[in-house]
Amino acid sequence: MSNSPLAIGIDFGGTSVKCGVVDGPKIIATADRLTTRNFPDAPSLIDAMAETTQALRERHPAIAAVGIGMPGFVDFTNGFVHNLSNVPGWQDVPMRDEFAKRCDLPCQVENDANAMTYAEWKLGAARGCNHVVALTLGTGVGGGIVSHGIFIRGARSAAGELGQASIHYEGRKGAYGNLGALEDYIGNNELAAEAQFAYARKGIEKSLATCQPSELATAARNGDEIASQIWIDAAAQLASSLVDCCYLLNPEIIVIGGGVAQAGSLLFDPLYASLASQLSGPFKDHLTIVPAQFGNEAGMIGAARIALESAGLV
Amino acid sequence: MSNSPLAIGIDFGGTSVKCGVVDGPKIIATADRLTTRNFPDAPSLIDAMAETTQALRERHPAIAAVGIGMPGFVDFTNGFVHNLSNVPGWQDVPMRDEFAKRCDLPCQVENDANAMTYAEWKLGAARGCNHVVALTLGTGVGGGIVSHGIFIRGARSAAGELGQASIHYEGRKGAYGNLGALEDYIGNNELAAEAQFAYARKGIEKSLATCQPSELATAARNGDEIASQIWIDAAAQLASSLVDCCYLLNPEIIVIGGGVAQAGSLLFDPLYASLASQLSGPFKDHLTIVPAQFGNEAGMIGAARIALESAGLV
Repeated sequence: MSNSPLAIGIDFGGTSVKCGVVDGPKIIATADRLTTRNFPDAPSLIDAMAETTQALRERHPAIAAVGIGMPGFVDFTNGFVHNLSNVPGWQDVPMRDEFAKRCDLPCQVENDANAMTYAEWKLGAARGCNHVVALTLGTGVGGGIVSHGIFIRGARSAAGELGQASIHYEGRKGAYGNLGALEDYIGNNELAAEAQFAYARKGIEKSLATCQPSELATAARNGDEIASQIWIDAAAQLASSLVDCCYLLNPEIIVIGGGVAQAGSLLFDPLYASLASQLSGPFKDHLTIVPAQFGNEAGMIGAARIALESAGLV
Repeated sequence: MSNSPLAIGIDFGGTSVKCGVVDGPKIIATADRLTTRNFPDAPSLIDAMAETTQALRERHPAIAAVGIGMPGFVDFTNGFVHNLSNVPGWQDVPMRDEFAKRCDLPCQVENDANAMTYAEWKLGAARGCNHVVALTLGTGVGGGIVSHGIFIRGARSAAGELGQASIHYEGRKGAYGNLGALEDYIGNNELAAEAQFAYARKGIEKSLATCQPSELATAARNGDEIASQIWIDAAAQLASSLVDCCYLLNPEIIVIGGGVAQAGSLLFDPLYASLASQLSGPFKDHLTIVPAQFGNEAGMIGAARIALESAGLV
């Protein structure tokens, strides 16, 4: 028996949209994925999301809210999506109102990394903590912040973009003109490109596909020095970003999730060592760094939870 | 007529301790400064601070609380000073309790840059704002953060250390082992050393005293290209740190104070340009950057305000 009502969590990704029925920390049913490129524009995809929602409601009448996690900058207060970098036709979409028109349920729209953070904070690895930094490492690098028990959204609901914060003031120029953004160093594709380049310097030709993080992790575990160095460098870059978060926010726990985090000790051992050497006492003595509890389902779980809380249902 | 009771604000600096009687945003009386090196240890200086407080109370009986702003890492909750980097004998001092023993007034101890931030937030340039980042640029670089109307102290009251956050993941090693700390680039002495080095490269010998920020500002205004470049570089370094704060916290206002800020347009023009080019819409469209309203008195004003609020007197 669950203590909280059911909600639908929608994880809107660059290639597909996943809808699940969420019961607290569990997904109890999922619908077939919607493939974004099958829909020519935002309204047609929102139609399909609403139809999926109605179909799930017929099987689960207790569903009381819908939460949607979206990549890109989302104005949570107004349920407005500023832009989706990877999905054409999604610019300045009033997502919450458009969805609500089609489906008479309380609906909230949130950045996907914020949804992941929310899941970990309320139901996962950071449960019970008041000062949390969460980070998800994949194709993109996203994050979320909780401070003094408050989810930090900032003045225009755009806070928590750890992947856009800089690790080098004269570094690579990113998607928004920002220099040295963390995502432009340790995003999946950037790690792969870095590795391909490092192998090429040693006269070894590799495809990008064979330089993906999971391949690099296997190679490093098998003693490949180039792959090992990639992880050491990535740990130093990630550490710099987390050191910043610590000196700015003094969190008690940092939660790290996403595909790149599956490199395990290859990434985490040098990361811990770097944090220990860069943080002074009050910042490190009570700090815990943990892997995320939820995997690919974190976005759905967190979005559903946010929607229920916003509707006053939990 | 003031609406709030009087408080004593104490600004504990590296070389001297200033005590003032604070009435809202105004200092209405000050005591003679205490020179830190005249006191062999923490207890003797705390004795003198308490005596000064008592003398001020005799002239201003309405004084209802004492706030002390200290450099270094301060545990606000416990009134505990972890360390004062520039004052020997100040390590792990239970400042609040030691002061309270000597003086029966509600007392609070806070980091000096947090006190400055508090003054600007409650009474100064960021009054009425709920999402604030404040920065003070001097020998040290300090800061403070307000988010969602809450002063962000973090899990161990050590948050807001903008000067220790990194602008370069492989940068200079700082006091705490941290790499690329902002303070190690744009602190007064670092700017002076950078300028001295830049002049030397051009065969111009200068003393550090003639390379202080105020001298560099004058030189740049008179067309000195080396000095101008120092300001352009400092703006790029400062911008990187503020870009981070924006992507992490999405503030509505950034307040900049301290001596270095007096370089005015030399620093601020390239700073604004860099922020505009590095921030995407939701982060910059509603962002204001302003100079601090209070000068050297901000620490006293803010510390006094914090003490009154903590005692429930405002």
